[in-house]
Amino acid sequence: MKNLLIASTALVASAGFASADIKLGGSANMGVKYDATAVNTTSIHHEVDFDIIGSGTTDNGLTFGASLDVDDDNAALGTVNDSEVFVSGAFGTLTLGSVDPATDGFGIADLGFDGIGVDDDSESLKTAGSTADIHFSTTFGALGVIVSAHSTNNDAAVRFSYNFGDFNASIGHADNSGAGANRAATTIQLGGTFGAVKANAFYTDGTGSVTTNGYGVDMTYTMGAMSYTFAYGDTDAAGDDADFGIGAAYALGGGATLAGGVGSVDGRNVADFGLNLSF
Amino acid sequence: MKNLLIASTALVASAGFASADIKLGGSANMGVKYDATAVNTTSIHHEVDFDIIGSGTTDNGLTFGASLDVDDDNAALGTVNDSEVFVSGAFGTLTLGSVDPATDGFGIADLGFDGIGVDDDSESLKTAGSTADIHFSTTFGALGVIVSAHSTNNDAAVRFSYNFGDFNASIGHADNSGAGANRAATTIQLGGTFGAVKANAFYTDGTGSVTTNGYGVDMTYTMGAMSYTFAYGDTDAAGDDADFGIGAAYALGGGATLAGGVGSVDGRNVADFGLNLSF
Amino acid sequence: MKNLLIASTALVASAGFASADIKLGGSANMGVKYDATAVNTTSIHHEVDFDIIGSGTTDNGLTFGASLDVDDDNAALGTVNDSEVFVSGAFGTLTLGSVDPATDGFGIADLGFDGIGVDDDSESLKTAGSTADIHFSTTFGALGVIVSAHSTNNDAAVRFSYNFGDFNASIGHADNSGAGANRAATTIQLGGTFGAVKANAFYTDGTGSVTTNGYGVDMTYTMGAMSYTFAYGDTDAAGDDADFGIGAAYALGGGATLAGGVGSVDGRNVADFGLNLSF
Repeated sequence: MKNLLIASTALVASAGFASADIKLGGSANMGVKYDATAVNTTSIHHEVDFDIIGSGTTDNGLTFGASLDVDDDNAALGTVNDSEVFVSGAFGTLTLGSVDPATDGFGIADLGFDGIGVDDDSESLKTAGSTADIHFSTTFGALGVIVSAHSTNNDAAVRFSYNFGDFNASIGHADNSGAGANRAATTIQLGGTFGAVKANAFYTDGTGSVTTNGYGVDMTYTMGAMSYTFAYGDTDAAGDDADFGIGAAYALGGGATLAGGVGSVDGRNVADFGLNLSF
Repeated sequence: MKNLLIASTALVASAGFASADIKLGGSANMGVKYDATAVNTTSIHHEVDFDIIGSGTTDNGLTFGASLDVDDDNAALGTVNDSEVFVSGAFGTLTLGSVDPATDGFGIADLGFDGIGVDDDSESLKTAGSTADIHFSTTFGALGVIVSAHSTNNDAAVRFSYNFGDFNASIGHADNSGAGANRAATTIQLGGTFGAVKANAFYTDGTGSVTTNGYGVDMTYTMGAMSYTFAYGDTDAAGDDADFGIGAAYALGGGATLAGGVGSVDGRNVADFGLNLSF
Repeated sequence: MKNLLIASTALVASAGFASADIKLGGSANMGVKYDATAVNTTSIHHEVDFDIIGSGTTDNGLTFGASLDVDDDNAALGTVNDSEVFVSGAFGTLTLGSVDPATDGFGIADLGFDGIGVDDDSESLKTAGSTADIHFSTTFGALGVIVSAHSTNNDAAVRFSYNFGDFNASIGHADNSGAGANRAATTIQLGGTFGAVKANAFYTDGTGSVTTNGYGVDMTYTMGAMSYTFAYGDTDAAGDDADFGIGAAYALGGGATLAGGVGSVDGRNVADFGLNLSF
């Protein structure tokens, strides 16, 4: 693969003929979780999620970049994962790699410093179990369009969003035809800002082999550095409990936020409390 | 988990709303080791240990941070490991994650560029085999206190250190009650600086299911960029050989040090010689 | 291994007493490949290859450094790999770690944004299957010398290169005596620049248990930001098809290059087209 006639050292070659830029980003958290790992059990949690992000601009103004995650948490060994490469211009942004389906952005807020999972059940239907490795997003004024597909799985998804200023609406459809799955899901979401209050609701209609529907609503009230969030989600699957709870977050400045949440998830009382750090 | 109504690209989200700082640190070494992998065998060794370190300060002066290691050596594949998250203030420093027990800092110097292991046997008792995922340290003037615990294993440890200026003393106790281990260890350590000579000695008293005791002493003489270290360690376990040796290190400047050690470890003659690099 | 009497936090220790420097580098690509994963199949490909590179200079002018790769692509999980540590001075550069044999630099250009593999067969003989973990390179004026060896496998290789200005020649030998392999290979390579055209050819003579010979030639014509490359490679193994193709690359500026290749490899028609990004 190489054709270096005089390679004084492999290190010099690996440094590249860089003219673009690479930087680090990431986040971390630490705190206490109740009922997260077992019923009636309090456990501690920490998590470090760093990103390496390269980016640049071509002579004619296209931007491009690549990123991956370097993560470690309570589990045995950390991982390198989630690599993506993108190119972006007036046409939009095309991303290949570990991307999410176009309908992945639907949903409600989770609560707490690490997420008590109040949104998990209701959001589990929005992608119809589909996957993606190609992601394209663009905007036409206030209209945003996202299209995703998987290059080998026959999965595809699309989402249209419209921004009315203090109000936004979006609709999306995910199709999972891979390996005989034969299911799909259509989701609508509405959100708005009313002074210090933001509210948001979605409904997912499952069709095909999985006809379960999911829905949720959240509301956030912000007062200076403090914010309170209520979230409620459910599905119409037989025997599925509604999930709901309240969370609070206090911005400490410098990228640190103190956050906690309490709620009922799958009929269990769950809670967490801790620090979110952003770098 | 997400609630992004218009996500133009996943990369933008992963970059975070950073106001804190992330940097790289680390160390590496390269050299030759004798008798390290097999009796009477000379082998080469290299090791690269980088850290990614995020840190920040809240509006009211708390500092916080997170770190993980990105390491690779002679083994087949490198790893991401050792993640920690901390918050620090006038009260002290609380760290969650892959922390060491409070008594892990006891011990004597190892010798050579990579460590010939002269300290391993004698230091093997100081933590009583306990583990930790919570670490708290603080100071009261010249008194330093470290407390550690494991959130699920019933392990705990504590250490008190007192700094008299050129002289320091510390005492610690580690308790390993996890999974029926039922052992503990108390360690005392004394150290001092006498002009160009630094000396240090510790004694660990094992109790419970493992009553072996360990002890060691080291002495370092520094002469400009050169330093010589003698170390001796042993346990009173039946049939255990005393471990001892001498090492020398020469600071080349810029973060590089030439170092080597020779000694007798577990009755075998061992040696190493190489470069330590600090970035 | 440690002797820290008052360790306020493990994070402080991991930050090191840095006086040298660490930076990030790397590359990425994204695009479409034809016939790469299966016959008559078009697939997408992305790849992110970042490096962490530490380096410094001693007081007497030696340079040193260490590097490793943090990579992720279409495969399930990314890896940390390819660590190297080097020290360099007027004597040359000594590198330990995941280095390539001295003859690895021989060969012809591959074509396309990710490489269609037109060079793989003909280049497969140049190292005689040998490995290395020690690499030394130096120059005597226009003469470059590379020597490599494996510390435990009995493998060794050497390469001499001479730079005549617009013309260069090199010869190398790789010896693989590890684990009864008993094979060797000698390679000669000639290259030159003739105005806007660069050409390059090599021949590998296999001896011992593998007597197959390999040979190849490439030619690149550069016209401003555009370059065209022709490559041809083959071996004299019975039934092995000649591999050949043409590629084109257009430098977009800022570290981005649009590139594609078409050719015949192992009797199959293969092609790729995509973006190369350098950070």
